[in-house]
Amino acid sequence: MKGTVLYGPGDIRFEDREDPKIIEPTDAVLRLAATCVCGSDLWPYRGIEKIKGPTPMGHEYCGFVEEVGSAVKSIKPGQFVVGSFATSDNTCAHCRYGYQSSCVHREFMLRAQAPFLRVPQADGTLVPTPGGAPSDGLIPSLLACSDVLGTGWFAADAANVKPGSTAVVVGDGAVGLLGVLSAKQMGAERIIAMSRHESRQKLAREFGATDIVAERGEEAVARIKDLTKGIGADSVLECVGTKESMMQAIGATRPGGYVGYVGVPHGVEFKGEELFYRHVHLHGGPAPVRRYLPKLIDLVLNGTINPGKVFDLTLPLEQVAEGYRAMDERRAIKALLRP
Amino acid sequence: MKGTVLYGPGDIRFEDREDPKIIEPTDAVLRLAATCVCGSDLWPYRGIEKIKGPTPMGHEYCGFVEEVGSAVKSIKPGQFVVGSFATSDNTCAHCRYGYQSSCVHREFMLRAQAPFLRVPQADGTLVPTPGGAPSDGLIPSLLACSDVLGTGWFAADAANVKPGSTAVVVGDGAVGLLGVLSAKQMGAERIIAMSRHESRQKLAREFGATDIVAERGEEAVARIKDLTKGIGADSVLECVGTKESMMQAIGATRPGGYVGYVGVPHGVEFKGEELFYRHVHLHGGPAPVRRYLPKLIDLVLNGTINPGKVFDLTLPLEQVAEGYRAMDERRAIKALLRP
Repeated sequence: MKGTVLYGPGDIRFEDREDPKIIEPTDAVLRLAATCVCGSDLWPYRGIEKIKGPTPMGHEYCGFVEEVGSAVKSIKPGQFVVGSFATSDNTCAHCRYGYQSSCVHREFMLRAQAPFLRVPQADGTLVPTPGGAPSDGLIPSLLACSDVLGTGWFAADAANVKPGSTAVVVGDGAVGLLGVLSAKQMGAERIIAMSRHESRQKLAREFGATDIVAERGEEAVARIKDLTKGIGADSVLECVGTKESMMQAIGATRPGGYVGYVGVPHGVEFKGEELFYRHVHLHGGPAPVRRYLPKLIDLVLNGTINPGKVFDLTLPLEQVAEGYRAMDERRAIKALLRP
Repeated sequence: MKGTVLYGPGDIRFEDREDPKIIEPTDAVLRLAATCVCGSDLWPYRGIEKIKGPTPMGHEYCGFVEEVGSAVKSIKPGQFVVGSFATSDNTCAHCRYGYQSSCVHREFMLRAQAPFLRVPQADGTLVPTPGGAPSDGLIPSLLACSDVLGTGWFAADAANVKPGSTAVVVGDGAVGLLGVLSAKQMGAERIIAMSRHESRQKLAREFGATDIVAERGEEAVARIKDLTKGIGADSVLECVGTKESMMQAIGATRPGGYVGYVGVPHGVEFKGEELFYRHVHLHGGPAPVRRYLPKLIDLVLNGTINPGKVFDLTLPLEQVAEGYRAMDERRAIKALLRP
């Protein structure tokens, strides 16, 4: 088969790769229905995150089970499954506490921008869709569950969004936009999306944003204070991962409020004393998508949510390099790839 | 009257001061039954925290209301009251959310190591003891509510201690020891106190510690992992405020667990990426003691808790300098001062 490999900044190649096969008895091999490019793929693509050599890319996936290892019990060939970007046995203590993305058997998935994919810890990582294969129109939304929706959902959960909350979402990438959707599902009464891009503002409103703030930095914080009677927001979803976005998130939160952060913080340092006097709750990390998958799949299948709308570009898999370019240049929010 | 003033590192003087009087109509003036030296007073005493000039000291207090301003409604002369180290109107949005130590009218108290004390925002800061003046034997425990117990209680609350939790307490100062007591009250099943001082270990056990860890740094983290089947603790109370203690606290927490931190973090910086992959919840700040005061006073008055045991040295107020010395040299856990 052919698969996607990053050779260096801006250098994405779709090239011959070995066909995946069962290595461990707990593995499954999937034939993917769809995969996509993640905002986090842009960090190494832009050279901000260094790579050690040619790196096979992709960690979002859904599709059909082709084959399973001898120790796999619940996952069966022929099933349509969605899996997390982080593998998990779903039985260790961390998994049982709901932190499957800190599983003792965690691996961060790679190689998913390809037609076939080996998934370790199949029983603990994959969730079959109830009722068999979904209609083709649902594939984008099911694919979104694998990371981008699950991550936005975790941001809202970590930010303690509750019915009636005022939530702020920092970041108008796909995760931020699905953070808006998640906050809406969790009952936020007011959702302030930070965006200066018209198409993204529009989608944010469609997903449930009640207010848009286009300012940045201190001006943004001042604007949010204005919108919240000087108090600050109950819940802030940090979906970027830069120092500026994090400071903006902490500044927008009321004392006693919650910051949920899901963008990998690149070069961010928190000053202890500043955080102390801010009185915020801080929680985040790689989203435990596996915890949320059954619920998210249900919400997609019963038509409650349509997170697949973040895919505003669909390409045949072999044009993956164009997907990266379009997202890098912010011409696309998120590129879906069809093998 | 005479009061306590810090002139520079190690230089505590008990000297003539103006008698406190009502300045704002929301003020009260108290005649103190007791006051004490706080662990945080040692930061400037040791010269680690710079002072700008002679600084009147003390922020823990309880005693009798002498006089109230014209706008004070609920607090009356003659009442015995306990107040927080941070003033609050108890009506602003932050107060209503339970973060009175971020009140829009917050002032951090000073000048309490004296026989008389002006307290701003009397109605929102002070809590009268039900049933009139308490017996003399209860004064140390009521005084403890003013900061040291309230702060330990907040550490446990911020660390999300629940019935059945495993809690670790970093720091064997008075706050840490009362963090142990608080975790016990909140139902922690296992309480691991970190201490290498025999007298403090003894008091920790008396307050509810089930295990003592004398190691520090990475060894301490390894020991706690051993004690928790390799998982880490649900709740860690950080009651010191140094980089070492904070890293120890974060390292001892399981993914998804909670760090409650109440020591002012001096020169602590959190690396965003490290925190991200640790998956911990982080919350802390100046304790909203006012939120807890009614409950803590009840627990003292009905004999459920005896936090006054942390005072292992009682001195006449005029010997305040000896109280500082004894605590600085760790000869005393905490010094109570009687005017």
